Amino acid sequence: MPSAINVLDLLARGRELVDPQLRHALERLDEHTRLVATYHFGWCDEHGRPTGANSGKAIRPGLTLLVAEAVCGSPEPAVPGGVAVELIHNFSLIHDDLMDRDTQRRHRRTVWAIWGDAMAVLVGDALACLADEVLAECNSPYAVHAGHALAVATRELIRGQVLDVAFERRDSVSLPECVDMAAGKTSSLLGASAELGAILAGADAATCEAFRTYGWELGLAFQIVDDLLGIWGAPEKTGKPVFSDLRAHKKTLPVVWSLEYGGAHGRELAAWFAETGAPTEDDVRRAAVLVENAGGREWALAEAEERVRKAGKALDAAGIAPANRDQLDRLAQFIAERQL
Amino acid sequence: MPSAINVLDLLARGRELVDPQLRHALERLDEHTRLVATYHFGWCDEHGRPTGANSGKAIRPGLTLLVAEAVCGSPEPAVPGGVAVELIHNFSLIHDDLMDRDTQRRHRRTVWAIWGDAMAVLVGDALACLADEVLAECNSPYAVHAGHALAVATRELIRGQVLDVAFERRDSVSLPECVDMAAGKTSSLLGASAELGAILAGADAATCEAFRTYGWELGLAFQIVDDLLGIWGAPEKTGKPVFSDLRAHKKTLPVVWSLEYGGAHGRELAAWFAETGAPTEDDVRRAAVLVENAGGREWALAEAEERVRKAGKALDAAGIAPANRDQLDRLAQFIAERQL
Repeated sequence: MPSAINVLDLLARGRELVDPQLRHALERLDEHTRLVATYHFGWCDEHGRPTGANSGKAIRPGLTLLVAEAVCGSPEPAVPGGVAVELIHNFSLIHDDLMDRDTQRRHRRTVWAIWGDAMAVLVGDALACLADEVLAECNSPYAVHAGHALAVATRELIRGQVLDVAFERRDSVSLPECVDMAAGKTSSLLGASAELGAILAGADAATCEAFRTYGWELGLAFQIVDDLLGIWGAPEKTGKPVFSDLRAHKKTLPVVWSLEYGGAHGRELAAWFAETGAPTEDDVRRAAVLVENAGGREWALAEAEERVRKAGKALDAAGIAPANRDQLDRLAQFIAERQL
Repeated sequence: MPSAINVLDLLARGRELVDPQLRHALERLDEHTRLVATYHFGWCDEHGRPTGANSGKAIRPGLTLLVAEAVCGSPEPAVPGGVAVELIHNFSLIHDDLMDRDTQRRHRRTVWAIWGDAMAVLVGDALACLADEVLAECNSPYAVHAGHALAVATRELIRGQVLDVAFERRDSVSLPECVDMAAGKTSSLLGASAELGAILAGADAATCEAFRTYGWELGLAFQIVDDLLGIWGAPEKTGKPVFSDLRAHKKTLPVVWSLEYGGAHGRELAAWFAETGAPTEDDVRRAAVLVENAGGREWALAEAEERVRKAGKALDAAGIAPANRDQLDRLAQFIAERQL
């Protein structure tokens, strides 16, 4: 069994390489934008007082650095890539919180909730610019290739969010459509995080593609686990009340599977979703039982495992040393099993 | 005297080179995003029906191509730069309209007003990604340099908008602060538009910087003229009622100058701005007279001319052929004199 503690060590090591350059990048921002960005990363409170906190698990840059190490023996050439993917990830969080009107993230108020819509748009935009700058300055012969891969992935990330917005206006969404949206929102950037590690370490095209697929499949596993946590996650770990996605009537992957393949339970769940008005606690608990009885929870757990298996299979083509392979397999398992 | 018709010909020639690649870039977008982006460029109505219209004057890409021609004799190597600056310009327009809650642009409803806040954020973000992609794919040895210059300018553009938002919450803004904001909002991207033409044409660092300064000074002239049009512009040309910036209580450059240096008229104008409640037509007309009597209009006209002179002086260092120099001088004059 993989050890979560070892994976956390690997991620912490990656964060130690990336965080100083990330902070350095934020120093370029004007004072207003810098305060908001520094707050968003968790490094200060809304008045600019340092919190002493770090910037979270930093899975994406960790992935970038582990891949680079697997390719060329050192994470160093990929540090600007790690900084860039973390900046793009946070650009998307700030814009998504605004669009979804979420007022809390990691137990803290979101940027738009404190500073308003305009600053949320602008600070997100500024982080995306910094990502471009950091990559363009990295003095690597692969800077253009890395920048291109990141831009394509960012556009794919945006496409996922566009689908999310479009689906909210529709009565029903098919499972393939829902998977496509999840892939856009999560797989694209995890795929690029792995790909940038390979690109900046000088890997050939086939190897870069293998790592991109690894990250992409991991992204789907990640999103499926996120959806499971959104229903059954422990509040003290997720920072949200139990069943919160059902309370918000969110049609996540386990729900969409249940609606499509869950037979009588699925039809009952569809009727539940068709009800208007705020659901009571009993209503919400009943919906969770319906998803479970329909088989949606079991399907999601199996699908997350299957995506981790596919991620591992993609690595077969990358031809990497056993020790590095072991790290990447552990990271994949960690993502699939986190807090479940 | 420069002929506006010749400058319009120059810009139209540039648009002919840039538009096909711009349309080609938009084809990469998913169908939802593409519809909104194509509408924003004016090429279709909100249901996707082609309008047959072009994408406006396209001053920024025109500038990029004219500079490239001045440096290396051909606009061709700079076409991806022209596409990229036009994409960034439109990214900023879509986000700015949302932040400013403007419902009309070029006599048409704005993106957020039709499709909502989320789509305005996302379509803007997607255009910025396309700009990166187009530059990264341009097969130029100068692609990284061009991408970096554009990212820095975009962040500067964002800084200008951040200042605009911050200043709206303050009682008074000094003239240098107001110039700094205008430089961020307008000079940064016009500077980069000229700079990218030089970079992609293979100019040396000093020449790139000379062209950047040329575009930067032009940007300030452009903004000052915009502010004059916002007060005294003819409604049939600006698409806005006369005195519209005063009606909206906007403290533009001629106003800020008048408040700071306009003596008794300036103090009377300050009292006018301190009044709350919606101003009547007579109130607004009185404010325009106060700006004029304070000397704000005269100062702005002289300042725009001075910026055009400085733009021309920057070109002295670029060492370009007289025919190219003449084109760039005409463009500068056109910007300073447009519709006044």
